[in-house]
Amino acid sequence: MPVEPKKNIFYAQSGGVTPVINATAKGIYDEFKKNRKFFGKLFIGKNGIAGALNEEIIDIEKENKKEIDKLIHTPGGAFGSCRIKLKDPKKDQKEFNKILEVFRKYNIGYFLYNGGGDSQDTTLKLSRFFRKNKITIQCIGIPKTIDNDLPKTYSCPGFGTVAKYIATSTLEASLDVSSMSKSSTKVFILEVMGRHAGWLAAASGVIKGKINSAPHIILFPEKYFDKKNFLQRTKKSVEDDGFCVVVVSEGIKNKKGDFLSSSSERDSFGHAHLGGVAPILANMINSSLGYKVHWAVADYLQRAARHIGSKADVQQAYDVGRQSVKFLTEGMSDIMVTVMKRRKDGSWRTGKVSLVEVANKEKKLPNNYIGSDGYSITSVCYKYIQSLIDGESYPPFVKGIPNYSKLKLKTIKKLK
Amino acid sequence: MPVEPKKNIFYAQSGGVTPVINATAKGIYDEFKKNRKFFGKLFIGKNGIAGALNEEIIDIEKENKKEIDKLIHTPGGAFGSCRIKLKDPKKDQKEFNKILEVFRKYNIGYFLYNGGGDSQDTTLKLSRFFRKNKITIQCIGIPKTIDNDLPKTYSCPGFGTVAKYIATSTLEASLDVSSMSKSSTKVFILEVMGRHAGWLAAASGVIKGKINSAPHIILFPEKYFDKKNFLQRTKKSVEDDGFCVVVVSEGIKNKKGDFLSSSSERDSFGHAHLGGVAPILANMINSSLGYKVHWAVADYLQRAARHIGSKADVQQAYDVGRQSVKFLTEGMSDIMVTVMKRRKDGSWRTGKVSLVEVANKEKKLPNNYIGSDGYSITSVCYKYIQSLIDGESYPPFVKGIPNYSKLKLKTIKKLK
Repeated sequence: MPVEPKKNIFYAQSGGVTPVINATAKGIYDEFKKNRKFFGKLFIGKNGIAGALNEEIIDIEKENKKEIDKLIHTPGGAFGSCRIKLKDPKKDQKEFNKILEVFRKYNIGYFLYNGGGDSQDTTLKLSRFFRKNKITIQCIGIPKTIDNDLPKTYSCPGFGTVAKYIATSTLEASLDVSSMSKSSTKVFILEVMGRHAGWLAAASGVIKGKINSAPHIILFPEKYFDKKNFLQRTKKSVEDDGFCVVVVSEGIKNKKGDFLSSSSERDSFGHAHLGGVAPILANMINSSLGYKVHWAVADYLQRAARHIGSKADVQQAYDVGRQSVKFLTEGMSDIMVTVMKRRKDGSWRTGKVSLVEVANKEKKLPNNYIGSDGYSITSVCYKYIQSLIDGESYPPFVKGIPNYSKLKLKTIKKLK
Repeated sequence: MPVEPKKNIFYAQSGGVTPVINATAKGIYDEFKKNRKFFGKLFIGKNGIAGALNEEIIDIEKENKKEIDKLIHTPGGAFGSCRIKLKDPKKDQKEFNKILEVFRKYNIGYFLYNGGGDSQDTTLKLSRFFRKNKITIQCIGIPKTIDNDLPKTYSCPGFGTVAKYIATSTLEASLDVSSMSKSSTKVFILEVMGRHAGWLAAASGVIKGKINSAPHIILFPEKYFDKKNFLQRTKKSVEDDGFCVVVVSEGIKNKKGDFLSSSSERDSFGHAHLGGVAPILANMINSSLGYKVHWAVADYLQRAARHIGSKADVQQAYDVGRQSVKFLTEGMSDIMVTVMKRRKDGSWRTGKVSLVEVANKEKKLPNNYIGSDGYSITSVCYKYIQSLIDGESYPPFVKGIPNYSKLKLKTIKKLK
C-alpha cells in the first residue's frame, strides 16, 4: 500500500515589510526542522501571495544554511512581499481558483500568511474558499505590522523595533536642536509612519523628561489638527525651553477629514500613499512664527531600522513564527497567532485568536493612551511602549556595515 | 612675592553639531585633569562664542562627574553651539573688543574652538586680534564637521559616525524597497546633508554589491544634475534590478548653478538652508516614469545618530580633544589639530596644521573618488570611507533608550 506523501507548507510575507518579519520566517524554519517528520517541504511564495498566483515558489532547503541563520537579524522581506488585495471571491474567483490549483499541484496542506489586517482577511477568504472546494488546507495568520494596529494581540511584531528607533531618534534630534536653538534652528519636526493609528508617533513620547519637554508636540491621526492651537503651542514651547520638537504622524487630518499631506497617490489596497506632512508644518511655522525650522521624514529608514532592534520585539517575532508551525502540528486552522501578556509578572507568551476577529480590523490608539492636552502620551501608554522597546538586539557588523542575509531566491522548477 | 594665578582655558563648540563633538569635550576635560598643575580652570562658553559675548560661562568642575563621563557617547553639543559669524574686525571691532574684555576679566590664557571651516576662521581672526592688542592667548582650533570638508586633515570627527548611519540606512532601506518592488514601491530616495561637498552622499556607496546594485544613483553636489540622464538611469535600474535606490545630497544644483531644493532661507553664516530635494525628485520620477516612489529626508536624524557610532570616529574625536590640550602645554598657537594617517600600517595619529591653511576653506570630494559615470564612488573612495566607519561604539541603554548626558549648564556668577 503506497504511503500518502506528507503535506507541504506554503508560507508568504505580505504588505509593508518590517525590521523583524524575517525573524518570524526564521522561527517558522526552526520549528519546521524540529517537526521534520510531520511535514513535507517548507515552500515560500516569492513576493507574497504573488508567488502562488505566478507559481514562483522557493524551497527553503535550497538556500544556504548560513544565510538562513542571518534572517534573525535581517530587515525587509527576504522572500519578497506584495501589496495585492485579492478580488472578492463572490464577484471574481479567478485568483482564488489559480491559488487552489497551485496548492493542489504542490500538495500544500498548510498555509501560513504573515501580514497585517488586510492579509489576515486574505487568509480568512482563502480558508473559506478551500473549505467550499472540499480541500483540506490549514490556514494560519501570523501578525506583522510596524503600525501595531492589529486587534486582539498585545503587540504586533515589528512595532517594538520601529518604536525604539523613533524614540531614540527623537531623543538624539532633540539634543541636536537644543544645542543649536540659541542662534539658529528653533523647531525640529519628525514625520513618522502611521496612516490611521498613532502608535508610532506615540513612541516618541517615552523620552519625555530626558531633554526639557521634548517632544513638545505629538500629532496623532486620532486627533484633528488644529492649526491655531498648534502654532500657539509651538510658540509657547520655544518661549519656555528655547526650542520645540514636533513628532507628526503622516496620517493627520484637518477638521474636514482631509489629510494634511498633499499627495493623492493610493496603493493597491486603496490606501492613500502619504508622506510629506513635515514640510507643510515647517512652512506653516516659518511663515507664521518666523522660526528657523528643520524637518526629517523617516519613511523606510524607520521601517527597516534593524540596526537598533528591540530585543523584546525580535523575540516576539521569532516566537510567533515558531508558534504558527506548532499550531499546524496541533491541527489548528482559521486563527491568527497572538502575543499575550501575563498579568502577574508582565512576561508574555504566544496565543491565538479567530481570524474573523482580526481580518480587516484596525486598532487605534486608545483614548486613555493620549494625554488630555491631545499632544502627549499618558503613563499607561508609556508603560506599554516601554515594554516593547526593551533590550537591544544588534546585528553583527562586517567592515563597518551590518552583515545581512543574502538569499539566492531561486524558484523551483514549475511542476507540469 | 605674590604668585601669578595660572591661566584659564576657554573652550566652545561652534557651528552645526555632530554625534561625537562631546567626545572631543571629554578628551579636553581628561587631558585638562591630567595637567591640572599647568592650568587654572576649564571654562566652557555656553552656546559657543556667544558664551564669551554674553559672558555666560560654565565651569566644567561644577558639573556632576558621572554626567561628564557620559559625554563620550552623547550626541549634540552638550554646552550649546552657535551659528555666529563675527563681523570683520577691520570694519567693526565691537564683538572682538567684548571678547577681549571678557577673556581679560576671566584670566583666559588659552582659547580652544571646536568647529568647521568658518569656526577656524573665527579662531584665526581672534588670535590676530589678541596679538595686536598685546595679550597672550594661545589659540587652537579643533576640527569638527559631519561634512568632512576641512582640508589638511585625514578626516573630520563627526563624519565617520554619520557616514556609518547613512551606509547602514541605505542598506536597510534597499532591502525594504527590494522586497516591495514587485507590486508596489519601485524607487526609494534618501536625502542626506552636504551643502557643497558630497562626502556624506558618497558614504552610501560603500554598500555596493550587498543588495543588487543599490545605491543605483548617488547625486553629488560636485556634479551638475542632468534630469534626462537621471530619469534614464532610474528607468534602467528598475528594469535591471526591479527597483532603484537614489541617494541625493541636499546641495545638488542644475547646470545654471541653482539649487534644486526650493527653500531660499539662509543661515547666519550666509549659507542657504537647504532640505527638500528628495520630494522634488520623487515627483519628477513619478510624473515622468509613473513609478511609485518613497522618499526620506534624514536631516538631524543623521547628524545626531550617536546610537550607531563609529568606533574609529569616536576615538578620533576624543583624541583631537586631548591633543589640543597637549599642544597648549607645549606652548603652541594658531594651529588646528588634525588627524594624520600613517602610510605604513593605515593607523592614524593626531597632528597639526596652521590655521591659515584651513580657515574658510572647503575640501570637496576629489575627482578620483567619483566613478566615471558620475553616480557612484571609486574603490579609492570606498577604502577611505570604510576606514572611518569601522567598528561599533554603542551608547549604554536604560529602559530601551540611550542613556545620554544631562548637564546642569549653570553659568558662573559674572565677575565685576
